[in-house]
Amino acid sequence: MGSFYGENLRLTVFGQSHSPAVGCTLDGIPAGHAVDIDRLRLFLQRRASRGQAWTTARREADEPEILGGLFRGRTCGAPLAIVIRNGNVRSEDYEQLKGIPRPGHADLTAGLKYGGAQDYTGGGHFSGRLTAPLCAAGGVCLQLLEEEGVTVISRIASIEDVEDEGPLTASTADKPFPTVSDTRGAQMRERIALRRSQGDSSGGIVECAVLGLPAGLGDPMFGGMENRIASIVFGIPAVKGVEFGAGFGAARSTGSVNNDPFTVEDGRVCTVTNNAGGILGGITDGMPLTFRCAFKPTPSISLPQQSVDLERMEVTELRTGGRHDPCVVPRAVPVVEAAAAIAVYDALLGRKKEL
Amino acid sequence: MGSFYGENLRLTVFGQSHSPAVGCTLDGIPAGHAVDIDRLRLFLQRRASRGQAWTTARREADEPEILGGLFRGRTCGAPLAIVIRNGNVRSEDYEQLKGIPRPGHADLTAGLKYGGAQDYTGGGHFSGRLTAPLCAAGGVCLQLLEEEGVTVISRIASIEDVEDEGPLTASTADKPFPTVSDTRGAQMRERIALRRSQGDSSGGIVECAVLGLPAGLGDPMFGGMENRIASIVFGIPAVKGVEFGAGFGAARSTGSVNNDPFTVEDGRVCTVTNNAGGILGGITDGMPLTFRCAFKPTPSISLPQQSVDLERMEVTELRTGGRHDPCVVPRAVPVVEAAAAIAVYDALLGRKKEL
Amino acid sequence: MGSFYGENLRLTVFGQSHSPAVGCTLDGIPAGHAVDIDRLRLFLQRRASRGQAWTTARREADEPEILGGLFRGRTCGAPLAIVIRNGNVRSEDYEQLKGIPRPGHADLTAGLKYGGAQDYTGGGHFSGRLTAPLCAAGGVCLQLLEEEGVTVISRIASIEDVEDEGPLTASTADKPFPTVSDTRGAQMRERIALRRSQGDSSGGIVECAVLGLPAGLGDPMFGGMENRIASIVFGIPAVKGVEFGAGFGAARSTGSVNNDPFTVEDGRVCTVTNNAGGILGGITDGMPLTFRCAFKPTPSISLPQQSVDLERMEVTELRTGGRHDPCVVPRAVPVVEAAAAIAVYDALLGRKKEL
Amino acid sequence: MGSFYGENLRLTVFGQSHSPAVGCTLDGIPAGHAVDIDRLRLFLQRRASRGQAWTTARREADEPEILGGLFRGRTCGAPLAIVIRNGNVRSEDYEQLKGIPRPGHADLTAGLKYGGAQDYTGGGHFSGRLTAPLCAAGGVCLQLLEEEGVTVISRIASIEDVEDEGPLTASTADKPFPTVSDTRGAQMRERIALRRSQGDSSGGIVECAVLGLPAGLGDPMFGGMENRIASIVFGIPAVKGVEFGAGFGAARSTGSVNNDPFTVEDGRVCTVTNNAGGILGGITDGMPLTFRCAFKPTPSISLPQQSVDLERMEVTELRTGGRHDPCVVPRAVPVVEAAAAIAVYDALLGRKKEL
Repeated sequence: MGSFYGENLRLTVFGQSHSPAVGCTLDGIPAGHAVDIDRLRLFLQRRASRGQAWTTARREADEPEILGGLFRGRTCGAPLAIVIRNGNVRSEDYEQLKGIPRPGHADLTAGLKYGGAQDYTGGGHFSGRLTAPLCAAGGVCLQLLEEEGVTVISRIASIEDVEDEGPLTASTADKPFPTVSDTRGAQMRERIALRRSQGDSSGGIVECAVLGLPAGLGDPMFGGMENRIASIVFGIPAVKGVEFGAGFGAARSTGSVNNDPFTVEDGRVCTVTNNAGGILGGITDGMPLTFRCAFKPTPSISLPQQSVDLERMEVTELRTGGRHDPCVVPRAVPVVEAAAAIAVYDALLGRKKEL
Repeated sequence: MGSFYGENLRLTVFGQSHSPAVGCTLDGIPAGHAVDIDRLRLFLQRRASRGQAWTTARREADEPEILGGLFRGRTCGAPLAIVIRNGNVRSEDYEQLKGIPRPGHADLTAGLKYGGAQDYTGGGHFSGRLTAPLCAAGGVCLQLLEEEGVTVISRIASIEDVEDEGPLTASTADKPFPTVSDTRGAQMRERIALRRSQGDSSGGIVECAVLGLPAGLGDPMFGGMENRIASIVFGIPAVKGVEFGAGFGAARSTGSVNNDPFTVEDGRVCTVTNNAGGILGGITDGMPLTFRCAFKPTPSISLPQQSVDLERMEVTELRTGGRHDPCVVPRAVPVVEAAAAIAVYDALLGRKKEL
Repeated sequence: MGSFYGENLRLTVFGQSHSPAVGCTLDGIPAGHAVDIDRLRLFLQRRASRGQAWTTARREADEPEILGGLFRGRTCGAPLAIVIRNGNVRSEDYEQLKGIPRPGHADLTAGLKYGGAQDYTGGGHFSGRLTAPLCAAGGVCLQLLEEEGVTVISRIASIEDVEDEGPLTASTADKPFPTVSDTRGAQMRERIALRRSQGDSSGGIVECAVLGLPAGLGDPMFGGMENRIASIVFGIPAVKGVEFGAGFGAARSTGSVNNDPFTVEDGRVCTVTNNAGGILGGITDGMPLTFRCAFKPTPSISLPQQSVDLERMEVTELRTGGRHDPCVVPRAVPVVEAAAAIAVYDALLGRKKEL
Repeated sequence: MGSFYGENLRLTVFGQSHSPAVGCTLDGIPAGHAVDIDRLRLFLQRRASRGQAWTTARREADEPEILGGLFRGRTCGAPLAIVIRNGNVRSEDYEQLKGIPRPGHADLTAGLKYGGAQDYTGGGHFSGRLTAPLCAAGGVCLQLLEEEGVTVISRIASIEDVEDEGPLTASTADKPFPTVSDTRGAQMRERIALRRSQGDSSGGIVECAVLGLPAGLGDPMFGGMENRIASIVFGIPAVKGVEFGAGFGAARSTGSVNNDPFTVEDGRVCTVTNNAGGILGGITDGMPLTFRCAFKPTPSISLPQQSVDLERMEVTELRTGGRHDPCVVPRAVPVVEAAAAIAVYDALLGRKKEL
């Protein structure tokens, strides 16, 4: 039971790569807030593959249909239910793989867990396809956060060892390849193209910042903003690490360097630096909330790999077909924003209970 | 509301640094399992300060009292309730700090969140003291996991830039300074001693591995083992990053290098390498589950720091008293084990529902 | 946030009376269990109006579409997602009622809660229409329970003061009017017809029994079977009371009469009587689990009623149109079964964690 | 896992009848609210046995100790933790009963569930003793509700067939025997005395009303006020039925009689009658929220009863010792208030998220 997130919101994400549809239900949104479907559609298109060099050949319309929760363009208190039809599926691509798990994928573990009953076509419920309804839910939360003056921005921080340059201070959403430095972005695209030509794939890092957050969000201990955000972003396939503020860098540092001195600006306390990533004791301090997610390289590669024929229990060589991204990081950027928006909006609702 | 963790277990951690006691309740433990209080006491002593050079001068007895949940030495189905009395508290150390938040601490954010009603003495509910009841709950889970053939081991992986050597394959629990390489451990201690002499503090990394886990634990999406572990370990004060397996290293890698090839050993499928940290699609694959936590340097340092006098809203210099560790990492090692044990045992109970 | 139920399952029910669809998501069902869609469809038809004298004129196809969670006819571990399209809606019937709340309905309270943003057409999310997806979820649980040897039966126990005769020992599902005594059923139908002709409506009681339950389901205190069942059946519109076993009758009784003596049958302990309704200390004892739900009379009546014009804040007379059942009790019978099945299956999954 | 309640609060009740203590943790209470320990103590004394004719001979001091969550008399944001020591226990009374379950008690089902590991002394975690920490949690909520202008009142509505007279409009808390009519109260006491002399026990009904509630609390479907209250009050041992407003009486009624006409008073909409018990569609309408709980007769009676010797699996006669109330209803009155207060305060916090 893992397709569920939230404390003040309750999100369920459903569907499989090749089932009739994917979708989500999102209960707990206050009534009376406008949801702009056109903007939601545009947000979903940032995630959708658009035939670029770095994306899969599978075209997905990603047209969201709202089945419930809206009334005349506004939230009405009932759970939001959004469905996105699947189409353009080629299940036969996967038939040959049934008995030979792909390294780095959930094929083996899903089989062990579900005793062979799992939907293995297209990765089933473990497919990156499930990030579409996550984006639908997050896209709505982004609109709701905007009403509160909160915005979420992000960028590709690195592809393999190619790092972006300059601080993340503004949205990169209007760029086809969302980096701050276009030069570095071009180098990243080259690297991805190289891996594609080699039948290989690339890992990378997405950096995200939430701006305009009020201080006081989040809770001590297990309800901290770090816990809340980590417990949703690890739900994005391929994420293997999360760090906040200086993160793993802080572990190499000293207190005198890493502590953020307090100062006063515009009549409120803020910090001179932001190594804390805007979070102290799990609770927002009013500075930008910043975090970075490490994505492993797409496990789907066309290079031959060692696997096991599960029927014969013998080592065998696997060559995979199917259509896959040589690097998921570019398409993951809006997904990370969506996940952050859900976690932050959930915390924001929780904050209201205290006031 | 953050002092709560669990899906199949329900853990609540309570108390403040200077309240009469800290403690925990843990509901959902199956009945009939022996709990050895002496072993629990020994486990708690690994966390307690023992007057070593790298720990605070505050001595804590950390004597657990079981108020409920046991009957004649075995779990009886009722919630486990454990209380650890606080003693040796010097609240007056904190009175002067009331209006001047310590950088890197939760003083500011707790004040903003609770409107001044927070217990600020000793850090209140945000104190590292709360890791004692976390260890009490985790210490019980460690015993329960042992019955299932599961063990949890860990070590200090680094202090600042001093890294331990060699792989983590066995417990370091019997060492006074838990590293694999004693030479490196000595270097780390030197570094900590240096920072103490400078009135400064050190960050570091704790590495943890769960051995003997059955395959099939964890769930897709938000119920993955990464999500479950991250959402509890970020509840340990000072943790700012978590990575699984190759973690952030995977983000610099390629699919052909990072994918773990499958092979067959002793009649079951396993992987040749373990970059996945034993988790594919959120679900254990039967390999060791490995993760690393980045701890920021203890924010409490005796060097003067810039802060703000909240009453006057003016920048001021802060010099802190109180008694603190120059590095929390050594004492955090059993805390990380405890947190991992709780998350893993919770997932193990969840797994039973499917079978 | 109320459209959510479950501890080991996670059920979300979505949709409004006049939104594009109603539906549900149900996470936590173990993989590998066959779900027979035709049987599910038949179960839904027991709830659907079929043009009988005692039902609304609105015809609903109630055709369930499974969007996710099944793979080749079996549960696959992913959340089950079921959608039932709405059709045949006449929203204009409700426009006139917008400013004048119907007595006994949620019109007033929904307006107060949602500040006017609620979907008021057809009762919105408060409509009896939402029992269709509840039946869809429950219909699946009934099939899963059957695999475990558990069956759920029910009947109309009374309509107003007309009571059914004889004990409930077998399913009444194949009867058009589900009572044990057909004579009493005919009298009940007459009463309903009378109320319809008067422009009035009738209350009644549904009795339900769960047979074949293993002993040991449920938990102490708030996780008892009574709590679990009550917290779902009060989600059925118009339920105003729930009692288990002898229920309110036990309150008029004495211990020597009400206590169920233990005896031995077929090598296991059972009780001679069943005043406890199969539940002791919240936990099943292996006897039939029995309960009764009180349904208030349908609030929609065509007799003129006193209400308030909310714009003018003046008392006014209300005459309602729309299409409604003069008595919801007959159609509620499968809904109560569905709710019981969900609660019981959830408890059954929870029981597995202990074993 | 049942000793847990709450959506916006998180209550865990722990302890057994003869364990060192009983207690509770309550997370989610906003900071800054005064808690008067003396008033809490007085509230607990309403539940405690005081040597009256209708209570057990066991004297319990019921002295609450606050271990965490308060700072200088006010809630501080950390979980409230309250412990009440057990004393005056005579476990040996229960040794003889180990193998012979008491009819009407949880002895049998606890044994089946926990496989013999349950704490059977004094009823263990199933004991009425656990209502002491429930009252502690509820007593705090009552104080918090008072700040919001909400009060909870209740009375004994009946003992067996002896019914109280007159409506419940004011607190009966200052009466030694809490009925509206003292004459009827005297008759009830006589009945209880009679049953005691017969070695028997009496059932009864507690009626409760929550006054001053704002409209708009509660949620549709499973989050309705009925669901919320039912799911906590069934956690009080011996409760077998719950009804709201007209309750089971509504099932015998017609819509024209049962619907509460709307009217306008003091500029707001209210209802002329209150058959709905202040709840429409699960949501408060601003009228008093009223409900009644049916308590079965205390299962502990001294008359001989038929039970089973579990070792020999033979029917046997049971004569019980121990010290028990011949009727739990009088002492249950504050417990019902406490449970209602917790449920209502939880809903009140949830309401704030929407505003």
